[in-house]
Amino acid sequence: MAYRDEKLDEEKVFKDPVHRYVHVRDRVIWDLIGTREFQRLRRVKQLGTTYLTFHGAEHSRFSHSLGVYEIVRRILENFRDHKDWNEDERLLSLCAALLHDLGHGPFSHSFEKAFRLDHEDYTQSILLGDTEVNRVLSGVEEGFPKKVADVINKTYTDKLVVSLISSQIDADRMDYLQRDAYFTGVSYGHFDMERILRVMRPLEDQVAIKESGMHAVEDYIMSRYQMYWQIYFHPVTRSAEVILSKILKRAKELYKNGYEFELKPVHFFSFFEEAPSLEEYLDLDENVVMYYFQMWIREKDPILSDLCERFVNRKLFKYIEFNPNLQMNAWRELYDLFEEAGVDPRFYLEVDSSSDLPYDFYRPGEEGERLPIHLLQPDGGLKELSRLSEIVESISGKKRTDHKLYFPADTIEQISDEKTKQRIKGILYGREEQ
Amino acid sequence: MAYRDEKLDEEKVFKDPVHRYVHVRDRVIWDLIGTREFQRLRRVKQLGTTYLTFHGAEHSRFSHSLGVYEIVRRILENFRDHKDWNEDERLLSLCAALLHDLGHGPFSHSFEKAFRLDHEDYTQSILLGDTEVNRVLSGVEEGFPKKVADVINKTYTDKLVVSLISSQIDADRMDYLQRDAYFTGVSYGHFDMERILRVMRPLEDQVAIKESGMHAVEDYIMSRYQMYWQIYFHPVTRSAEVILSKILKRAKELYKNGYEFELKPVHFFSFFEEAPSLEEYLDLDENVVMYYFQMWIREKDPILSDLCERFVNRKLFKYIEFNPNLQMNAWRELYDLFEEAGVDPRFYLEVDSSSDLPYDFYRPGEEGERLPIHLLQPDGGLKELSRLSEIVESISGKKRTDHKLYFPADTIEQISDEKTKQRIKGILYGREEQ
Amino acid sequence: MAYRDEKLDEEKVFKDPVHRYVHVRDRVIWDLIGTREFQRLRRVKQLGTTYLTFHGAEHSRFSHSLGVYEIVRRILENFRDHKDWNEDERLLSLCAALLHDLGHGPFSHSFEKAFRLDHEDYTQSILLGDTEVNRVLSGVEEGFPKKVADVINKTYTDKLVVSLISSQIDADRMDYLQRDAYFTGVSYGHFDMERILRVMRPLEDQVAIKESGMHAVEDYIMSRYQMYWQIYFHPVTRSAEVILSKILKRAKELYKNGYEFELKPVHFFSFFEEAPSLEEYLDLDENVVMYYFQMWIREKDPILSDLCERFVNRKLFKYIEFNPNLQMNAWRELYDLFEEAGVDPRFYLEVDSSSDLPYDFYRPGEEGERLPIHLLQPDGGLKELSRLSEIVESISGKKRTDHKLYFPADTIEQISDEKTKQRIKGILYGREEQ
Amino acid sequence: MAYRDEKLDEEKVFKDPVHRYVHVRDRVIWDLIGTREFQRLRRVKQLGTTYLTFHGAEHSRFSHSLGVYEIVRRILENFRDHKDWNEDERLLSLCAALLHDLGHGPFSHSFEKAFRLDHEDYTQSILLGDTEVNRVLSGVEEGFPKKVADVINKTYTDKLVVSLISSQIDADRMDYLQRDAYFTGVSYGHFDMERILRVMRPLEDQVAIKESGMHAVEDYIMSRYQMYWQIYFHPVTRSAEVILSKILKRAKELYKNGYEFELKPVHFFSFFEEAPSLEEYLDLDENVVMYYFQMWIREKDPILSDLCERFVNRKLFKYIEFNPNLQMNAWRELYDLFEEAGVDPRFYLEVDSSSDLPYDFYRPGEEGERLPIHLLQPDGGLKELSRLSEIVESISGKKRTDHKLYFPADTIEQISDEKTKQRIKGILYGREEQ
Repeated sequence: MAYRDEKLDEEKVFKDPVHRYVHVRDRVIWDLIGTREFQRLRRVKQLGTTYLTFHGAEHSRFSHSLGVYEIVRRILENFRDHKDWNEDERLLSLCAALLHDLGHGPFSHSFEKAFRLDHEDYTQSILLGDTEVNRVLSGVEEGFPKKVADVINKTYTDKLVVSLISSQIDADRMDYLQRDAYFTGVSYGHFDMERILRVMRPLEDQVAIKESGMHAVEDYIMSRYQMYWQIYFHPVTRSAEVILSKILKRAKELYKNGYEFELKPVHFFSFFEEAPSLEEYLDLDENVVMYYFQMWIREKDPILSDLCERFVNRKLFKYIEFNPNLQMNAWRELYDLFEEAGVDPRFYLEVDSSSDLPYDFYRPGEEGERLPIHLLQPDGGLKELSRLSEIVESISGKKRTDHKLYFPADTIEQISDEKTKQRIKGILYGREEQ
Repeated sequence: MAYRDEKLDEEKVFKDPVHRYVHVRDRVIWDLIGTREFQRLRRVKQLGTTYLTFHGAEHSRFSHSLGVYEIVRRILENFRDHKDWNEDERLLSLCAALLHDLGHGPFSHSFEKAFRLDHEDYTQSILLGDTEVNRVLSGVEEGFPKKVADVINKTYTDKLVVSLISSQIDADRMDYLQRDAYFTGVSYGHFDMERILRVMRPLEDQVAIKESGMHAVEDYIMSRYQMYWQIYFHPVTRSAEVILSKILKRAKELYKNGYEFELKPVHFFSFFEEAPSLEEYLDLDENVVMYYFQMWIREKDPILSDLCERFVNRKLFKYIEFNPNLQMNAWRELYDLFEEAGVDPRFYLEVDSSSDLPYDFYRPGEEGERLPIHLLQPDGGLKELSRLSEIVESISGKKRTDHKLYFPADTIEQISDEKTKQRIKGILYGREEQ
Repeated sequence: MAYRDEKLDEEKVFKDPVHRYVHVRDRVIWDLIGTREFQRLRRVKQLGTTYLTFHGAEHSRFSHSLGVYEIVRRILENFRDHKDWNEDERLLSLCAALLHDLGHGPFSHSFEKAFRLDHEDYTQSILLGDTEVNRVLSGVEEGFPKKVADVINKTYTDKLVVSLISSQIDADRMDYLQRDAYFTGVSYGHFDMERILRVMRPLEDQVAIKESGMHAVEDYIMSRYQMYWQIYFHPVTRSAEVILSKILKRAKELYKNGYEFELKPVHFFSFFEEAPSLEEYLDLDENVVMYYFQMWIREKDPILSDLCERFVNRKLFKYIEFNPNLQMNAWRELYDLFEEAGVDPRFYLEVDSSSDLPYDFYRPGEEGERLPIHLLQPDGGLKELSRLSEIVESISGKKRTDHKLYFPADTIEQISDEKTKQRIKGILYGREEQ
Repeated sequence: MAYRDEKLDEEKVFKDPVHRYVHVRDRVIWDLIGTREFQRLRRVKQLGTTYLTFHGAEHSRFSHSLGVYEIVRRILENFRDHKDWNEDERLLSLCAALLHDLGHGPFSHSFEKAFRLDHEDYTQSILLGDTEVNRVLSGVEEGFPKKVADVINKTYTDKLVVSLISSQIDADRMDYLQRDAYFTGVSYGHFDMERILRVMRPLEDQVAIKESGMHAVEDYIMSRYQMYWQIYFHPVTRSAEVILSKILKRAKELYKNGYEFELKPVHFFSFFEEAPSLEEYLDLDENVVMYYFQMWIREKDPILSDLCERFVNRKLFKYIEFNPNLQMNAWRELYDLFEEAGVDPRFYLEVDSSSDLPYDFYRPGEEGERLPIHLLQPDGGLKELSRLSEIVESISGKKRTDHKLYFPADTIEQISDEKTKQRIKGILYGREEQ
């Protein structure tokens, strides 16, 4: 039998807290899960620094990837007999679902910004490079790795397949909303996925939702909205990310300046040069990063040492509301005062805006955005969701930005110059008290 | 106000998926959570290698410790007005609950066996040594750290306090059963804790359960029984532990033999000498261990490299049922055949017996065991649970041992001498097929 | 000890699927639950005819009333130490919570419309009249029954107490949303009540919500919105209500016309006269109504018999979208055609509009409405919810009406005059097909 | 297309709180659900008088029947490709599952005992008599109603089909355990049905369970055990049943004695004669029974009136532990004292033993019992569950009887002869206090 059609002797099941069971029948899928590149996802947390805010959020991208695969598997089971679904695309869709996050590195967002990387490029490299994953995929048929890469890259010709993984109501989001809600323990994030799967219909170039399922979809959009504000944009999580960015920035600066590390950051060298090879990229998982951070606590550079201590032992920065556009003067003054007090503002003062984060709750029709949700009318026509739903209309396309100023409250308390200290505190806390 | 009575301005809450919220009002508790020794528990998994079997089991001892604290907090809220409860012991009980697992190292069981350590000794050291935790506890009153240590060590005079943390139905077990069930996703592990908390009664030297709550307790014991067989003794988890032990054994042997490591295992030196200092012990968390394992894949020693590759990328050993007492000849023959084939049996062949594991589902009255469960009769008398419950009686004290033989199935396939290979396979698989 | 302060020897608990346990310590509450007027609520379904759409919705107003009591009990436990809460109002609040639905009759909405009754009047009568409930309440103190009646009637002077039972986020709604979701089995209707209870703050004249709890409240409002469209306004439920109304209308008409019933509707006489005494009102629960309906299937009046058969054996009317304002001519023509065909349109044709139903999802500031939700700012100020929440703003005050035309599809099939039948079907179904 | 193969244009779904959705594709099933005999099950509670103990237990046999159907549907979906399953039996199995409880009357157990009826006989009559159900089934093929009746009667030749509905682990039990747990709100009753369905294997004459699923089955048996003691045998529920039986006994006695009822119990006449016709049987649902009970509160016979008042308004009998075999003298004395005091002991004194109830938690191999559970070994052999499971062994076949003596505590308080009263109270309560 051709490898692409090969089935396991007996179905394998993974016990999954979100979907109860993840079912695997295809040998290709089973082999992919066993590759070192896929196993590596166990060492990258799904929610980065969120575990420092919600202690349950220790789950990895490994379980999320299995979850996305399982959702697509269930969708395709429902599609099997639909005329608009091409069963030949089944294995391709499953592989793309399973592997869509393969390129994520440690604490993705912060690392990508600090070293100007893009995890999507690395997903492509892993699929197409000299990897175990590539060898498994190549066994299916010539050009199969490229097909998988194209689906994940949204350039594949069959847009229906693309939309399973990447649209406003794709398997990726349906999994992470439920999974992140489950592990953090919040009550948001629940919606009736079983119902949504039942009202999905394959069209030529996208998945549409039967109009009778509109309320279930509204509920899904609301879950997303709530999860973003309650979990993904949480200011404490962002505080940890600020510190993380500062550590990377400091380490790189020290490296560029020829600083002698006690523990040479060999894993980081190519990152500092902004040109890690694929192998170097894969080597740097969160265990390795955390190993360095723990070691660096003992470095003699006081800034690197302090920031690592803060991250590892969760001595985070405090924050206040702060609008950089309206409070430019206060910002400048603070910056100067920090310098005066010997607290380097480049590492100890930061404005973070939630709108920088790569999340949206629902934006139909924006340039380069994911496909919006279309409702299938009884007469076969399509209508975009926000045109039919008042609730979705009310939140779609709106950009709600939340600016926070982060700073080390404990360090400020230790500033020896009393006047400078009081002035800093006046700016930071005075605003709130007056 | 005395530090021991100090309350936070506003109650702090942790969102917890198992108990919904963990509530903190006492400043002492809040400060303890912030110490580096307690934060370190985020880097030690609650279930060791179980995440390689149940992918959801990535939760840490940090969240478990918060959970045990929360359960004791709720128990004591119910006890407040009981004449047999001494409210002065409240803070002590909460501290002991929070800190009872403080000494756990990475992958506890395997490490303790390999290096002849005992996590309980380290818990004592952390409480009484030069640590942040000790400084917080010392602020309560002189001798307070010792009191906490005594409660955890079960030598404290007030046995009622001890039994909250350590008995057959203590807060420790009630948390881990529910938490491990939640994160693995199995349906066992659920019982009606709310009901159990309501029927707990403080007596002079223990917590008793009102007889009317017997069925809830039976359900708890059954959950425990199911969890042990379904989760804690799972043969795949044990396969990973076997490999882990072999890695440690190999590294130590190489070290003793003067092998030149590419990456010197500085963190391990004192462990190899079986005498880590407190600081060295605390430094070695699971991130650090995993860092070494990943690096060692590139060591030139083929055994160390192979075993690390297996652990990191989950290429585990296979297993068969095997009773070492009845199959001694087979064992000897296998051992010799492995040697002949150049597969070192000291590292590639292992019999693992579940009964070695430090778990019991319910054993009343055994030497050195935890206090059994006593039911409080309407007339004020006490009866041991298994005397009233047929179900509990049926499983109590029974030792069900499950022996497995672990081996590298893939390596065996690559043995070049065909005859030796076939003989090995005959012994391993033949038994099952005939 | 005064009766008002009397506690039960041992707390009583009711196992409740929604709140896990309902706790009773006060003898007054215990005695009220035991009265025949309260027990009668077991014989009135919480959701009227909804069980014919969602088969799980067989729960009664009895369990809902216990639930509302339990929520208020938990709120007051949190309020205990707040300066703005008067602990003397505790028992009053609990009684009002427990008894707020006491006057509901069978299939409330339809009955009230058919016989021009108001269940709120009957609640007042039961509290103040010659009843077991009144005797229990009178034991608390003189004038206590009147106080309870005033709270339920929203005329009590302490508006804070009133708002617990009757506001946009009162215990009544929090219970029924969760309870109705639980019993119907829909996934909407869940929100984080525990969080909401924690952010409620007693003010002089209302309960406010700390601003940090806004997202939890948004989620509650969204649940409400979803429940109304998915459950409360469900067109099949309304079909059953249409039939119910027609039965009552027909029975009354027959009675007025001197028709000789085989089974005299003695329980209904005073209702037909629109003047039931309190005793007569209490006698007519849903069992009694259903008894008559079953008996009336055998009445010789074909309309009464047919309608009862439809209700009892769930042979409901079908429906189409129909806007009476725009389709007046179609309506008139249908009416005439029904008459021609011998199908009395007064009983077999009905336009039902969801906006007639006494539900709103959120309307701040309308005349005579329940108090809107106020968020308590950090500075102590209050802001109305929809001014801070875009989502709530988007749905507040909007009246979304859904009109349906109900008719007996099976009866139409049996019309002997082929032309009339085709004309009727053309009007009913043609619109949809063309 | 033949009626037996006819599918609905679009699948119908029922929202079900236990199984999430019940799916119907077959027209035959849809038509059966619409029959008046099946709709009648909405008016018979699943758990009889249990709602007086657990207020959530108001669910009907209607929803249970849908649930059993859905479980069998899911089992058969898994069986589809197994060589030992005959797909021709599919519709038969589904019909039998749906209709297996069709003959249940109001408060089944008490009524059957009082009037010497057997609901199984009535199920047969409904299937084979002049009913809507029979007409639907007859449309499938000649003799089909008889086939369905045989499956339910366990006399059908294909024992595999029988075992789906009636064995120690059939769809009937799997539904009611979960459903009753859900509606009462207890935490017992949960087990991993999804897992059990996955390990079920069709054999020639029964459904077997793969040995790897043993722990899931143990959990199911434990759930059953807990549910019986916590829910089904609850002494308060039995108190209500005692009163119910006494009402029926009194009404029958009065009828036999020529008593003039104010409200003639026309629905009961044929029951009193122990010969209700099928039509008479179907007429007497729980609404009708409750109607009579409410009316009879106003009958002049003081015993009938009092007992009905007790049942309707939940003024139940109290109970004590009482072993009739050991306490025969006490029983005789009480009986005499009641007579002396003018409290008729035939209606006010009753010993009820739980072992009389038609439940068993697990009894392999008893005469006339349901098929025991067989585990399918890897080698294809079968072993009975209790031979492999120590826990199941510990409870199987054991008859645990629980005797209670029921009496009206309030009436006893009103006995005017002080000495008799004290003597009665001495016997009833003295035993416990001394």
